[in-house]
Parts: sequence; C-alpha cells; structure tokens
Amino acid sequence: MTQLFTDPAPLTHAELEEGTAFAPRFDAAGLVTVVTIEAGTNEVLMLAHMNAQALALTLETGIAHYWSRSRGKLWKKGETSGELQEVVELRTDCDQDAIVLVVNQTGRGAACHTGRKSCFYRRAVLVDGKARLEDRGLPKLFDPDEVYG
Amino acid sequence: MTQLFTDPAPLTHAELEEGTAFAPRFDAAGLVTVVTIEAGTNEVLMLAHMNAQALALTLETGIAHYWSRSRGKLWKKGETSGELQEVVELRTDCDQDAIVLVVNQTGRGAACHTGRKSCFYRRAVLVDGKARLEDRGLPKLFDPDEVYG
Repeated sequence: MTQLFTDPAPLTHAELEEGTAFAPRFDAAGLVTVVTIEAGTNEVLMLAHMNAQALALTLETGIAHYWSRSRGKLWKKGETSGELQEVVELRTDCDQDAIVLVVNQTGRGAACHTGRKSCFYRRAVLVDGKARLEDRGLPKLFDPDEVYG
Repeated sequence: MTQLFTDPAPLTHAELEEGTAFAPRFDAAGLVTVVTIEAGTNEVLMLAHMNAQALALTLETGIAHYWSRSRGKLWKKGETSGELQEVVELRTDCDQDAIVLVVNQTGRGAACHTGRKSCFYRRAVLVDGKARLEDRGLPKLFDPDEVYG
C-alpha cells in the first residue's frame, strides 16, 4: 500500500500541482477530505474522509471506502445499509489534499444516513437577521430506524 | 454575528439533523469545510474552509468569503484575481459541519489559482500497481503568473 502513492514531501510545488504522481497530502490525522458526487448529475451526495488504507481500497476495489472519524475505523460505505457506492472516477485537487469521488449510488440511492439521496438536504437563508434552514424537499428513500435498528 | 447562527451545543441530535436552526458545527480550529459547486452544472469547483466571520459575510453579502488556512486570514475569493463567486444557494449537511456553496463563477470562470475552472483537473488511475494522475483536459483560462505576479 505504501508503494501505491507517492510521498509528497520531496515534490516541488510544480510537481505537486502539474505532475502525474499521485501524492495525497494526508493531514496531521492521516486523512484527506472527500466530496462524493453522483455520476451524471454531479449532485453532491456527501462529504467524508479517507486515510491511506481507505483511499487504496477505493482505488483497488472500485467501491468507496472511507475513514469514519466518529467511529474511528475503516468504513465500507453501505456495508450496513446496502447503499454501496461504485466508483466511476477519483479526482484530486491542485495541492492534492482533497478528493472528488464520482460514484454510482447503488441500493435505494440514498447516500445519507437519514435516508435521503444527499446529506445536503437543507439550505440556509437569512430571516430577520437570523440564519434559518429550509428543507430542499429531498424525499427519504429508506427509514433509518429500520435500516440501522 | 454571534446572533446570526444558533449554538449547536444544546441541540438534540434530531434538532441538528431535522431542525430549522442553522447551527454550524465549527471544528477545533473554528472552521467548517466548504464544497463550492457551479450553479447549473453542479461541477465541483473547489474545496475550502470558512470560519464564522466568512460564513456570515457570505450569507450577508451574497459573495463567497473563505478562511485561508495557508495565509491565516479572511479571504474574499477573487479579490486579487477578479474571479468573484456570486452565491446562488448555501446548503448544509445532516450534522451541520459542512457546507455546499452553489455559485456563479464570475470573471474568466476560473475558480482554481492555476487558471482552470476547477481545482479537480486530474483523475487518479492505477497503472502497474502504482497510482498515477491523468489530466482531465480543463483549459487554463488565465495565466497565473500574470494574475498573481
């Protein structure tokens, strides 16, 4: 696994930004931030994190794996809910500390643990100087109580 | 500004996830992660961070403001390059620690400091057991040397 990625430390700025070496810059906690979007629509489904193991497994298996910060363990997305994510493309950004994962969301099509397609189901608006949330109207595709018990 | 947002601490899990109070859960560094996408296409332009001030200014002015971690200061995106971002919608996720900012990218349409529309201009592929990056072919819409000096 250590040989899958390039060590970013010795790379120049230009090599990091314009080169062909994949040299993920994991943070102090060993993580990169991942934005998962739906193939075709580009809809943002969720935001999560990967450590080196999750990133390697995602590339090698074609199924999204993350690092769950709340549970402190590797997280094969959909292992409990059945909502696996098939990887279509994995992109990195200019300074290689973030990932965009383009996926086909399988199962009932719900990336969010609340049962909705996307975790971003509310918009913020200003009402009388206070920020409030409005529901964007995404339906619940499953009942979380049933799925997670 | 302190009254613009709701303090997440006393909120229940259900209030945080299904409620109408905007209670951003800033991390230990006082930041939330922001995914900025293009209105219409949903293309992911960049990933950045906001502190409470940047988030408030973004909501109040309708122009994207971030917190630059590398420079340690408030960052009105496009102040140097002219590539301002007009806010169309600001969304938050289930546990309110991430933002999706839907924008119209003004100027030359380049959100990335390399001059490209998006920071995510490379995809990772496996070649002989090694992860390599391929250019996705996004053109440079400006010359960074000219814009940033």
